[in-house]
Amino acid sequence: MNFVHPDSRRMSDVIPGWLEQRAQTNPDHPALIYAGGAISYANLAARAAVVAGQLRRLGVARGDRVALLLGNRPEFAELVHALPRRGAVAVPLNCRLSPTEIAQQLADCSPRLLVYDSAVRETVAAVRKNLSMPAANVDPDALGGDPVLEQVSAELETGSVRIDLQSVHSIIYTSGSTGRPKGVLLTYGNLLWSAVGSAFNLGVHHDDRWLACLPFCHVGGLSILMRSAIYGTTAVIHNGFDPAQVDRALDEDRVTIVSMVANMLQRLLDTRGDRPYPPWLRCVLLGGGPAPLALLQACHARRVPVVQTYGLTEAASQVTTLAPGDAERKLGSAGKPLLGTEVRLAGANGPVAPDGVGEILVRGPTVSPGYLDPADNAPRHEGWLRTGDLGRLDAEGFLYVMGRQDDMIITGGENIYPAEVEAVLQEHPAIAEACVFGVPDARWGAAVAAAIRLRRGATAEPSELSEYVCRRLARFKAPRRIYFVEEFPRTSSGKIVRQQVRATALSS
Amino acid sequence: MNFVHPDSRRMSDVIPGWLEQRAQTNPDHPALIYAGGAISYANLAARAAVVAGQLRRLGVARGDRVALLLGNRPEFAELVHALPRRGAVAVPLNCRLSPTEIAQQLADCSPRLLVYDSAVRETVAAVRKNLSMPAANVDPDALGGDPVLEQVSAELETGSVRIDLQSVHSIIYTSGSTGRPKGVLLTYGNLLWSAVGSAFNLGVHHDDRWLACLPFCHVGGLSILMRSAIYGTTAVIHNGFDPAQVDRALDEDRVTIVSMVANMLQRLLDTRGDRPYPPWLRCVLLGGGPAPLALLQACHARRVPVVQTYGLTEAASQVTTLAPGDAERKLGSAGKPLLGTEVRLAGANGPVAPDGVGEILVRGPTVSPGYLDPADNAPRHEGWLRTGDLGRLDAEGFLYVMGRQDDMIITGGENIYPAEVEAVLQEHPAIAEACVFGVPDARWGAAVAAAIRLRRGATAEPSELSEYVCRRLARFKAPRRIYFVEEFPRTSSGKIVRQQVRATALSS
Repeated sequence: MNFVHPDSRRMSDVIPGWLEQRAQTNPDHPALIYAGGAISYANLAARAAVVAGQLRRLGVARGDRVALLLGNRPEFAELVHALPRRGAVAVPLNCRLSPTEIAQQLADCSPRLLVYDSAVRETVAAVRKNLSMPAANVDPDALGGDPVLEQVSAELETGSVRIDLQSVHSIIYTSGSTGRPKGVLLTYGNLLWSAVGSAFNLGVHHDDRWLACLPFCHVGGLSILMRSAIYGTTAVIHNGFDPAQVDRALDEDRVTIVSMVANMLQRLLDTRGDRPYPPWLRCVLLGGGPAPLALLQACHARRVPVVQTYGLTEAASQVTTLAPGDAERKLGSAGKPLLGTEVRLAGANGPVAPDGVGEILVRGPTVSPGYLDPADNAPRHEGWLRTGDLGRLDAEGFLYVMGRQDDMIITGGENIYPAEVEAVLQEHPAIAEACVFGVPDARWGAAVAAAIRLRRGATAEPSELSEYVCRRLARFKAPRRIYFVEEFPRTSSGKIVRQQVRATALSS
Repeated sequence: MNFVHPDSRRMSDVIPGWLEQRAQTNPDHPALIYAGGAISYANLAARAAVVAGQLRRLGVARGDRVALLLGNRPEFAELVHALPRRGAVAVPLNCRLSPTEIAQQLADCSPRLLVYDSAVRETVAAVRKNLSMPAANVDPDALGGDPVLEQVSAELETGSVRIDLQSVHSIIYTSGSTGRPKGVLLTYGNLLWSAVGSAFNLGVHHDDRWLACLPFCHVGGLSILMRSAIYGTTAVIHNGFDPAQVDRALDEDRVTIVSMVANMLQRLLDTRGDRPYPPWLRCVLLGGGPAPLALLQACHARRVPVVQTYGLTEAASQVTTLAPGDAERKLGSAGKPLLGTEVRLAGANGPVAPDGVGEILVRGPTVSPGYLDPADNAPRHEGWLRTGDLGRLDAEGFLYVMGRQDDMIITGGENIYPAEVEAVLQEHPAIAEACVFGVPDARWGAAVAAAIRLRRGATAEPSELSEYVCRRLARFKAPRRIYFVEEFPRTSSGKIVRQQVRATALSS
């Protein structure tokens, strides 16, 4: 067949910048709502153009990486939307990391420029003692109308912005709950497809306001910013998770969708108490790993429209999400793949039996082309990404996530998934939270252990808790050792760092 | 940078079949509502798999074309969704064409198979006298549970369906209001992007039901079927336009969106009268060329949520659409480009002055890779498709469509756009519809003429009508000749065939 344009296959991958297009189509619609204000799409695009001029002045050119070490501030959005004008790649870093960790990631991605805000000034000073690198500070009063970057003269970037869906938009470091953080390359196309898949599952309403209380250095936070701009809807941004602020935002900022992990959601429920949730809140998207059934039941009882999702950085966030209509019937499931995405399970020795557990493999246009460091890239057979997560598919094809493959405990030849045991423990009235892991055992290879955080004022005997599990699961799944803790170590996306809990327990 | 999969750029273009994915994620949701029934996504996919088996039995293989000569019946959907299973291309043909015209299109696309329904049995018999070609009849009782194709044994196609977004999904013949019909190649990607762009302008609601009373042989009808399957929402399909049936469907079938052309919408308004429109009707998408301002004003007065769109087959339907929020403020405009799409104007001698008129050029991922016949393909500079339509962009970037370039009348060096004159004429209380065109004039090169359909029982003098225009527009725009007609010739998508009106007038 004859194609008019010899490069027409390629042409269809190049589209106008989505922020700039929204500034055209929805100029007055709020793009961001943040503590103390709001900014329209027209203004956000105008400010991004000024920031792009500052970045040019600082030498940022096509293909360069720019590390962003700042919180969920509107300036983050201005920066991340300015970079496409320069053809540069965003590398959002985690403000909560130590100077050593940040230096490691900066060395890994060698950015042209590090942009940081005042809250991490000391960390940056420590990093720069050993690592020389141009840096720019975000003006603390940037929103007063001044240019975003302090002491950099503004030079407006004009002209239209065009983006190639195949090119890299950002590099996101995995939270590193296991091993050294890896830089995941995400293309414009990955992010666009993620937005499309989410839209065609959850719907898109003109008045949607999606609350981002997850940090922008993680894909769960960043993708809210991206998809809101793609849809032309509003992102409500919180710098850190404060249950009282989220509670207030649901009512006063008319939040329609919020992304959370289980721990945050529990704290929100505790904060809100018996007050009903506003009618416009149409989706609480719950990610970050298997959720306690008790939490889901509590949400159901209080009519919180919670839907579970399974996602990962390597797939630009959501892979499967429960459709709101199935939320009640399939409590505990992370749902089915989004449009364009495929999921299958792989056993250690080939196919997985029906309803059996296997490693979750993912394929589709949201899947990252690879890691920044080639050494991190494992081969993909027919495009399937191995996630390292374990899951089960029921007869109807609903996914149930069982946790990390590395967390699985093999005791006397039996496989135990910590999430299953944790779910039972967390139904115990005295238990607020549980973290299950394996410890060495001379006879069985490994034994089940649990770290337990009790509810305030509650008490429990280890033997009673083990017995509680025995009555509900096979005896070999009951914890042999129980440790009581006051608080769990968490990643900045709110997940419990299981390996750290385990290490602390073993050394106690 | 290192990409894990050497072919990862390519992999992202291959996704699961969208019908099959919807059968997985939304099995019980109604895919189609039609006269006398409804069919769920699970059942539609199951039936499409049977039809695919029938097509295989008939020898349809990868790359083959299958001509579909049938109305807006559920079997059309089953066929068009069965073809991706065979890797074959759909060529929907217009049942209202003459045997000669159909034979011409069949000769042009040389399909492996012609599928037709009983309503066109005689046309097909006439065609096949001169053109030998395998053909299959759609069983009139197909929905009784029998296989769709009559007297073809069913052999179930199993296995998953994967589609390459770069490959051709269908060939649609342009309605041919000017010249010989041309076969437009539309890829899966064109259709997907069209669905995405529409979604992120109009929104996607879980309970959306989009009424297709435009024929599936045109992109305006076919795209409803495609985007409903992509979204997992419902298409309500009418076999032909019957204002009373549309009126009933708005209420009883809870239609939320309907696509129409101006003439249909006027008839709907006349049929419905003063009864209020249901609250769930959130969009009447009005395409098919410039709409009379009086019609838009009547819709506004009756609170009909009408939004104008500008589209064409070569761009898989919508190019620009007015956002519902701008519908009132920008009455008469076709809005702004959808996500991913760009529009600009080209003058005969270069750039167009601000607020000036020029040819509309379109670029983006919805734009067809070309026509089936290479001879039809004009070169595209930097990917821009020349539409042959004239438009004006206001200071805010809203598009106003002025009609076909070929319809423009040049009189004494002045350009006159028929749509502008028609809009004025149609505000005259005696006039139901007007069609303006140029006729030869010895002194000025061309003169303005108008064919007029009066309202029932109304009368008007030609001189009075000319004077009416003179009072509202420059004198040279007033029609010098006026013809009264009882009815206008129309394309099957409902557009007046201006050249035919003109030819009839000149020969009268």
